[in-house]
Amino acid sequence: MKSNAIVGQSGGPTAAINATLAGIIRGAFKNAEIDKIYGMRNGIQGFLNGNITELNEIFKNEKILQVLKNTPSAALGSCRFKLPDIVSGDKKDNEIYEKIFSSLAEKNIKYFFYIGGNDSMDTVKKLSRYAEKNTIDVNIIGVPKTIDNDLNGTDHAPGYGSAAKYIAATMQEICHDTAIYPIKSIVIAEIMGRDAGWLTASAALPRLYGGKSPELLYLPEVEFSNERFFEDIKIALEKSDSVVIAVSEGIKYADGRYICEYENHETDIFGHKQLSGTAARLKFIAQEKFNCKIRAVELNTPQRCASHIASLRDLNEAEDIGIKAVEAAAEGKTSVMMIFKRVSAEPYKAEIDCKDIADIVDKIKTVPAGYITASKNNVTDECLKYIAPLIAGEPEIIYHDGIPEFFSFD
Amino acid sequence: MKSNAIVGQSGGPTAAINATLAGIIRGAFKNAEIDKIYGMRNGIQGFLNGNITELNEIFKNEKILQVLKNTPSAALGSCRFKLPDIVSGDKKDNEIYEKIFSSLAEKNIKYFFYIGGNDSMDTVKKLSRYAEKNTIDVNIIGVPKTIDNDLNGTDHAPGYGSAAKYIAATMQEICHDTAIYPIKSIVIAEIMGRDAGWLTASAALPRLYGGKSPELLYLPEVEFSNERFFEDIKIALEKSDSVVIAVSEGIKYADGRYICEYENHETDIFGHKQLSGTAARLKFIAQEKFNCKIRAVELNTPQRCASHIASLRDLNEAEDIGIKAVEAAAEGKTSVMMIFKRVSAEPYKAEIDCKDIADIVDKIKTVPAGYITASKNNVTDECLKYIAPLIAGEPEIIYHDGIPEFFSFD
Repeated sequence: MKSNAIVGQSGGPTAAINATLAGIIRGAFKNAEIDKIYGMRNGIQGFLNGNITELNEIFKNEKILQVLKNTPSAALGSCRFKLPDIVSGDKKDNEIYEKIFSSLAEKNIKYFFYIGGNDSMDTVKKLSRYAEKNTIDVNIIGVPKTIDNDLNGTDHAPGYGSAAKYIAATMQEICHDTAIYPIKSIVIAEIMGRDAGWLTASAALPRLYGGKSPELLYLPEVEFSNERFFEDIKIALEKSDSVVIAVSEGIKYADGRYICEYENHETDIFGHKQLSGTAARLKFIAQEKFNCKIRAVELNTPQRCASHIASLRDLNEAEDIGIKAVEAAAEGKTSVMMIFKRVSAEPYKAEIDCKDIADIVDKIKTVPAGYITASKNNVTDECLKYIAPLIAGEPEIIYHDGIPEFFSFD
Repeated sequence: MKSNAIVGQSGGPTAAINATLAGIIRGAFKNAEIDKIYGMRNGIQGFLNGNITELNEIFKNEKILQVLKNTPSAALGSCRFKLPDIVSGDKKDNEIYEKIFSSLAEKNIKYFFYIGGNDSMDTVKKLSRYAEKNTIDVNIIGVPKTIDNDLNGTDHAPGYGSAAKYIAATMQEICHDTAIYPIKSIVIAEIMGRDAGWLTASAALPRLYGGKSPELLYLPEVEFSNERFFEDIKIALEKSDSVVIAVSEGIKYADGRYICEYENHETDIFGHKQLSGTAARLKFIAQEKFNCKIRAVELNTPQRCASHIASLRDLNEAEDIGIKAVEAAAEGKTSVMMIFKRVSAEPYKAEIDCKDIADIVDKIKTVPAGYITASKNNVTDECLKYIAPLIAGEPEIIYHDGIPEFFSFD
């Protein structure tokens, strides 16, 4: 007897999370064991409210599936919802799990796919454990996505390549923009990344082919020091009229304080501090030292949604990992996260595999010390060679009167 | 006898100002009367310091000229330099003009091209008047550029189409990014434009083909009112969980105060206030009224330098107007600014002509009242149909390992 599958998207959006959704839909279409493929609207939170949509009909049109692949953000909607700990013993907590699995049984759903980052893999882990404990026959598969590239256990995560490509291209443009006046000037660009500097590292990519890139990079992996910052700028301004600086939003002083930290700082439901204003804060402290034009630029949300300059390799890999997730589930795999293994660096070649979800959650993959220069204010060419293949290629975007065409359920 | 030509770039950079430079170089190459084509480094300010570069050798390579066309910012460098008034009678002021024209004579330069916006056309006007008064045989031609589209006398200005395309594409992406959580949220995006709302208007372009665009637009042409702003948001949040708002940096209250104005505000040398923080300020006041997630996003410098999503029509027109500028100069035209005339709306067709520079300087072209909806918080379809043809087409960008290749003299 055929059974059904369901897919959800969770956590922050990326330019590639819909490519993975397209891959899972394709995988379900190809698999003879799977009848219907459902989508949770707003992840597990929407699912708990019975908010699901059958996807077979909408996406049997190949062009719509292609447009979905190139659409930013999470077409199914997302959530930031933390499942209770299974060990809590709280009756209400247990009811949530009972509700989830009885709803799955009701719809004859045997394959459960959840696309997300570190926090979403927490959901995959908890659902997997509950299913194991209660010998429920649902195969639960996590599919990674994160622009931050901070997921452990995989060479990289879908979404990172496209974000890195946007940042590299935009920072190169800002470097051209900045250098035009015959006056001393500083630009401080703030890049996403709370704990890992992978995105900020990508700002240096144009250097690999001789293009313009920021002279100074500050990553969360390195303790930040105002004095070194001032000294770095002083040296850079001696060599050139303008200096462009890329900083991770999450840089911290040696004592652990964020640069932009202030009292009553907002936190999200996972307890993560919502950071912003790092560049503005650095502009403020640099302005007292350097009597020149200083501009703070936050690259902001376009980093995670600029589909118009997505990486073709990222979108293709994101789709492939979705297809392979369905294959893995059909083969009986459960409680796993799909991963990439880089089997060759030059030429780049990656294979898709899966790993026990228990080995993956709650570990942040940061930029290794060997990828950071001795001066602590840039990354090595080795680091850039790790990133470079992930931003390769440009997707064929369908334009409508000069504007990319995107998919939406609305 | 052959004579020489010189070209300079001035004012803020755009994604199309180098396409015009490429056009002027092409025009000079094609013209049998012109021997050398020089570039002023950092506009008239660099020229006064003898900082010029011969361009013939570098750009005889067709591929380099093609890359120049797609390079953002001003490859020759720019300046913000205001020539003194000719009537001043100050000996030092007169010396500046004498120096400029003797330097031109020394190099046998008979054709002078200056690419810029309103402030740069002030330079063209003053040099033209000095040359006329002193019967100096140099043909002086202004070639427009401005992302703001606020230059009078021309249907539109090169640079605007590419900025509008970046804004339309990015705002559509932000609309997709914003709508994913099942919670009430507001995004306030700040768009460039001190006096004219043309750039903010372009945020609504995806609407023309049914794409997502901001629900609310606030232009400097409309007096801003906190009360109307709150009421507009309230109504929008009743219809939808998330509301995306696009605001011009230059919006003002009825009494003329900028939203983001505060004491000791910086001004540039033309006396223009340097605006920023409008979205941040609106977030602050909206946060007191609406108990939901509010994010302020400044689109910032990428608006003027995002060559990776330039408008092909904009780049082609920018190049063409450069070629035509050389033809006009060779025909004896002087004291003019090159302009576009839209001779047909559908299908779009524009012709290039020129106009007396005296009729152009110091007038700002704002969005006409007829292009703004009765609700004062959006633009009409007629407005969008004026903008739409200017963002059409995608240039074939040369990518190096996933990153656009740009030209630089360094």
